[in-house]
Amino acid sequence: MNMQTDASFYAVIPAGGIGSRLWPLSRASAPKFLHDLTGSGQTLLQDTWDRLEPICGDNIAVVTGSTHASHVSEQLPHLSPENLLLEPSPRDSTAAIALAAAVLSKRHSDVIIGSFAADHVIHETDKFEVAVKEAIEVAKTGKIVTIGVNPTEPSTAFGYVKTSDAINAFESALEVKEFIEKPSINKAKKYFQSPDYLWNAGMFIAPAKLMLEVLSESEPELAKSIDALADKMLSGGFDKESVKSWNSLKKVAIDYSLAEPAAKKGLVACVPASFEWHDVGDFAAIAELQSQGRSGNLAVLGKAKVLSDSSSGILVSENDKLIALIGVEDIIVVDTPDALLVTTKQHAQKVKGLVDSLRASGKDELL
Amino acid sequence: MNMQTDASFYAVIPAGGIGSRLWPLSRASAPKFLHDLTGSGQTLLQDTWDRLEPICGDNIAVVTGSTHASHVSEQLPHLSPENLLLEPSPRDSTAAIALAAAVLSKRHSDVIIGSFAADHVIHETDKFEVAVKEAIEVAKTGKIVTIGVNPTEPSTAFGYVKTSDAINAFESALEVKEFIEKPSINKAKKYFQSPDYLWNAGMFIAPAKLMLEVLSESEPELAKSIDALADKMLSGGFDKESVKSWNSLKKVAIDYSLAEPAAKKGLVACVPASFEWHDVGDFAAIAELQSQGRSGNLAVLGKAKVLSDSSSGILVSENDKLIALIGVEDIIVVDTPDALLVTTKQHAQKVKGLVDSLRASGKDELL
Repeated sequence: MNMQTDASFYAVIPAGGIGSRLWPLSRASAPKFLHDLTGSGQTLLQDTWDRLEPICGDNIAVVTGSTHASHVSEQLPHLSPENLLLEPSPRDSTAAIALAAAVLSKRHSDVIIGSFAADHVIHETDKFEVAVKEAIEVAKTGKIVTIGVNPTEPSTAFGYVKTSDAINAFESALEVKEFIEKPSINKAKKYFQSPDYLWNAGMFIAPAKLMLEVLSESEPELAKSIDALADKMLSGGFDKESVKSWNSLKKVAIDYSLAEPAAKKGLVACVPASFEWHDVGDFAAIAELQSQGRSGNLAVLGKAKVLSDSSSGILVSENDKLIALIGVEDIIVVDTPDALLVTTKQHAQKVKGLVDSLRASGKDELL
Repeated sequence: MNMQTDASFYAVIPAGGIGSRLWPLSRASAPKFLHDLTGSGQTLLQDTWDRLEPICGDNIAVVTGSTHASHVSEQLPHLSPENLLLEPSPRDSTAAIALAAAVLSKRHSDVIIGSFAADHVIHETDKFEVAVKEAIEVAKTGKIVTIGVNPTEPSTAFGYVKTSDAINAFESALEVKEFIEKPSINKAKKYFQSPDYLWNAGMFIAPAKLMLEVLSESEPELAKSIDALADKMLSGGFDKESVKSWNSLKKVAIDYSLAEPAAKKGLVACVPASFEWHDVGDFAAIAELQSQGRSGNLAVLGKAKVLSDSSSGILVSENDKLIALIGVEDIIVVDTPDALLVTTKQHAQKVKGLVDSLRASGKDELL
């Protein structure tokens, strides 16, 4: 462990979600976070780990589906086995983060935890570190702190935080008035024009106990089950009954169970991010990210040999076969051993619908 | 052998040419004619055989590269081994057809032969049979007979025959005034408006001896070498010297060595085809052919599982993986184990250039 790290802080990486819009690369058996989507040579999960390590060393817990245990362990050699928290089934973000909060607060009574998605892209690691370190200090004053991202467009794909006064003792922290669900396009445009509204990038830093207290009021039954399950996990692991209990947990997003009720109580603060943040939700977003500063290029991820006259779009491949593109612009080609996708950036969002129709027709082996 | 067939007639199928514009399906190791490009369940070579069998039973010789011997034998179980004439290397159509003419005329002194490309598509087999049978009768009068195809567009991709008077003794045969090389677009438009100009579809029916006589005048050296090589082939096969001799044969298309000089001597006749004829030169042509009468459909060749909202284009696959297309029209997707092509019908002709650049960069394994 790095001795300069703050031992009272633990990072939690909830590594869930299939990433349907990134099919056929992202699959039930190998979701988005297990892939290199930036061409960094590392997966998104590894990039997330590497961003957090300067802040907290290997005080990092990963909450993921039991089916991903071996992949996650392979990708994160410094992840301690006791910090790999396995979910028998996906029960949404509240269950995942609350389990980590409960387990960690039982281990380290006054721990501050920070939750960071496994599949976001942040290149400016130094700025990220500064923001998270400030958030930790703010959290120590008894706040649930979110990292707010300055909107670059009037997006309807993210929730927003409405900030107000600066918190005097800190460099950039702001009070948060309310959490706002994904808005309509009209509201998003209004928010985009105001400096008060920031994207909720899903990063929450808070004392574990405070999180659990808020949860025990907003979702008392869920909180009680999680508390019992954390005890089980700490005393030898889940048994049959625990799995049954887990599988019947209420599915609710952390925004609703924690962020909104806490904001109403004035418990939420925000540290605005000074770094660029990307939620690479579909192949068009990855193409955009890849081609930044290098216009007129086809983005290529993977080992494919490429012959192409295309100046836009993205080509993703899981093998080294030759892929030849002639006269196709804004193209998206994703080649995997059992499925090939050909579409365009304009239609990238429709990939989710395709996956839905595969599911509906029972083609589970292709999900 | 079918007893109703005309034993004085032999069909020759020169099975050569890589079909670069059909890469990556058509390859040096498995050219165009070895593939099912019509969805008939048979390869173009098998379709060619089946069209000829009602005319001449298994009096069919195939001239092909020695590397294709096993594929051709597998695909044509009724092909007699003595009728499989193997070329040590490709030396263009004159060498291929002249070798067959020489071998067959040494075996059957007064044989009429007809040459039919291995990679053309003709669905109206009955009309084809009628035309070829008339051509055989005309050939018996000492003519080199071509089957002329009524142009459906002012194509610059084919040569033309300029016909004149009807030959009285026959149903539809016409005298041929001249053979015309692939014309400019202006000339093609002129020809298209005249009933006298027909496409030269590369089908020649003639007494083998007459072909060889014309050749011995137009290309005396080539004719002499072929005669010696035919003797070799009939007495145990090519030896090292024969291979060397073959490999140094002049490369010349049969149109120049035979058709043009014979036309000048008034030796050429034409039987106009009443059938549709397709030279499926590129994937756009195959897509057109496949979608005939079924507009609004993506053409699919191969065993791929397909999920698509495309109403045009073609998808060719050599395996059963899922191919998903979203929002791409006029698309061409060709997936093979070591190469994937994505282009559009508008760019189908450019595939040849891509193959040329692969060759130039020494990627022979992908040709």
